[in-house]
Amino acid sequence: MKIEGTPYRSVWVDENDGWSVRALNQTRLPWEVRPMLLTSEGQVANAIRSMQVRGAPLIGAVAAYGVALAMWQDASTENIRRAVAMLGETRPTAINLRWALDRMAAVLEPLPEEARVAAAYAEAAAIADDDAETCRKIGEHGLPLLEEIAARKGHVNVLTHCNAGWLATVDWGTATAPIYMAHDAGIPIHVWVDETRPRNQGAQLTAFELGAHGVKHTVIADNAGGHLMQHGMVDMVIVGTDRTTANGDVCNKIGTYLKALAAHDNGVPFYVALPSPTIDFRVGDGVAEIPIEQRGAEEVSHMAGMTADGRVETVRIVPEGARVANYAFDVTPARLVTGLVTERGVVAANRDALATAFPEAARAAGRIG
Amino acid sequence: MKIEGTPYRSVWVDENDGWSVRALNQTRLPWEVRPMLLTSEGQVANAIRSMQVRGAPLIGAVAAYGVALAMWQDASTENIRRAVAMLGETRPTAINLRWALDRMAAVLEPLPEEARVAAAYAEAAAIADDDAETCRKIGEHGLPLLEEIAARKGHVNVLTHCNAGWLATVDWGTATAPIYMAHDAGIPIHVWVDETRPRNQGAQLTAFELGAHGVKHTVIADNAGGHLMQHGMVDMVIVGTDRTTANGDVCNKIGTYLKALAAHDNGVPFYVALPSPTIDFRVGDGVAEIPIEQRGAEEVSHMAGMTADGRVETVRIVPEGARVANYAFDVTPARLVTGLVTERGVVAANRDALATAFPEAARAAGRIG
Repeated sequence: MKIEGTPYRSVWVDENDGWSVRALNQTRLPWEVRPMLLTSEGQVANAIRSMQVRGAPLIGAVAAYGVALAMWQDASTENIRRAVAMLGETRPTAINLRWALDRMAAVLEPLPEEARVAAAYAEAAAIADDDAETCRKIGEHGLPLLEEIAARKGHVNVLTHCNAGWLATVDWGTATAPIYMAHDAGIPIHVWVDETRPRNQGAQLTAFELGAHGVKHTVIADNAGGHLMQHGMVDMVIVGTDRTTANGDVCNKIGTYLKALAAHDNGVPFYVALPSPTIDFRVGDGVAEIPIEQRGAEEVSHMAGMTADGRVETVRIVPEGARVANYAFDVTPARLVTGLVTERGVVAANRDALATAFPEAARAAGRIG
Repeated sequence: MKIEGTPYRSVWVDENDGWSVRALNQTRLPWEVRPMLLTSEGQVANAIRSMQVRGAPLIGAVAAYGVALAMWQDASTENIRRAVAMLGETRPTAINLRWALDRMAAVLEPLPEEARVAAAYAEAAAIADDDAETCRKIGEHGLPLLEEIAARKGHVNVLTHCNAGWLATVDWGTATAPIYMAHDAGIPIHVWVDETRPRNQGAQLTAFELGAHGVKHTVIADNAGGHLMQHGMVDMVIVGTDRTTANGDVCNKIGTYLKALAAHDNGVPFYVALPSPTIDFRVGDGVAEIPIEQRGAEEVSHMAGMTADGRVETVRIVPEGARVANYAFDVTPARLVTGLVTERGVVAANRDALATAFPEAARAAGRIG
């Protein structure tokens, strides 16, 4: 998508040297639009772990480039396995990370060592291109949901949580793909952007990317969505997911479940946009089975922002020494999900519908599980 | 309650001059424990408007002292009415503000001018003492709910939203009164403290006052409560309210409704603690009838905290120029409320139960309405 008129992707190979990897440093946004230079798999792992790159699909693509960078140093089978294992440990919840790394290993291991560097870059590029194309298809399948509301009401108010935008993918985004398509098609659309504490991905990233592309939006506290829905100010909720189970339970950024409850209570449709690799057919009951990552206390206790005189400053927002807990995700039960917007269309959030839409993945999991 | 062992109230008459009014400046907490000096009704109005004093019961008591300060300057009937009208406009949602001001006018107007200063201070003190006593009774009626859980489980995990603590009242607090009593009685109690965006009353005030009194607690993002409830980590939710309707609908800090939905979805009891003047018997359907105050955008877009080198600094946390909305309250429908903990006992959240528990107030509203 565009930043002030210039088309961008969130990860690319440096156009000058042809081998190092560039990605926007998302911990600097919106204060600074700065592509990072990544030249080793260790730098890639660090960028993922520190959330300089984040978002399940983007993490997969960047990790694939991390394997390519590792091949540049040492193209042995041992090094493929070491790099894949090391990169796989950076974010335990991200299912496409595992998927992208497995895909890289499956392509590279059968090849002779001298072919692996070129093949690794080609496969990482294919993963990135595939992701952009998958997101474009998610947008195409989601667009009619927005068109229907616009036809009925003359405009659309969408609420979203966290950042499932193009910054979290390679291009288009997942939850934002239908939004960008509706905007580009001239549909009057307005997005309520949940701030998304504790890391503020909504206030900092979603607001930034919607604004940079020109989509009308309003930032709200995470607490506000229920009130807006009670008063008819939200026509539709659409969010992304880090992992969706075979039953259709949706693991996503902490707080998603609360918005789904409010949508259900007020008859507001609640959609989840996702590329199919995000579906984990080996897991059924998301609440019982998905381990929830706990992150550092300082994400809750401290907050970064820009001072009046233009410095980025971090401040402590709790009393000194206060105990803090930081659960990063929650699980929205399938019963609260109106539909899953995938690259193959809108699929109901239940086991039969998912297995019917993605029979090969469901079968593969059956063989493994 | 106590701050590091010293008993405090949240408003008092200065012990040296005997007429000026002292109150903790809550916008400086937890960074600085500093009593303000209020010497005119204009300063009182400003302190309420800017939320230096906040919390429905405390606002009522401080506004009453504001009328007393006005009498000191000019004890005419005209000035009573002017002061009451001016102070009444500072916070449209707070029902006890209106109640306390009406009580002051009713006491003062029949008196000769020369008796009004002393009577005003006496009545404001009575309002403050009554509030402390009301909160103590709320604590006594709420305590058995915690004792029952502790008897069954050996400990109690309570979740609360915003600050309905002693800082929001004169002493004890409403939602916190049963918590302080349980703690003082030696019951092992732990409180999940919602940060409470956008003004962070939970992270800054509730965490401060629980910590100062010695109650174990953990600050969480507002998004986290649903996950905790899904996993059995919350035994009970207890919150305050700015206004509760004759039907039992609960208007409270934005985000309360989302927590009530999560409690309902997970079978966690959801209690609301309130002094009976908070009940507005003239209003039935809270969602339809209560106007929701919108506050300044900068409460969402900017955040104050303490820098590493000990300065209080305000930072912008949204992209430059981002549009922001700031709805201050929401309404939790009575169907999601397990019970209302009042100074007369735990009352079901419905019209009949409330009218039975508070027949005089219900009748008075019937005559007015």
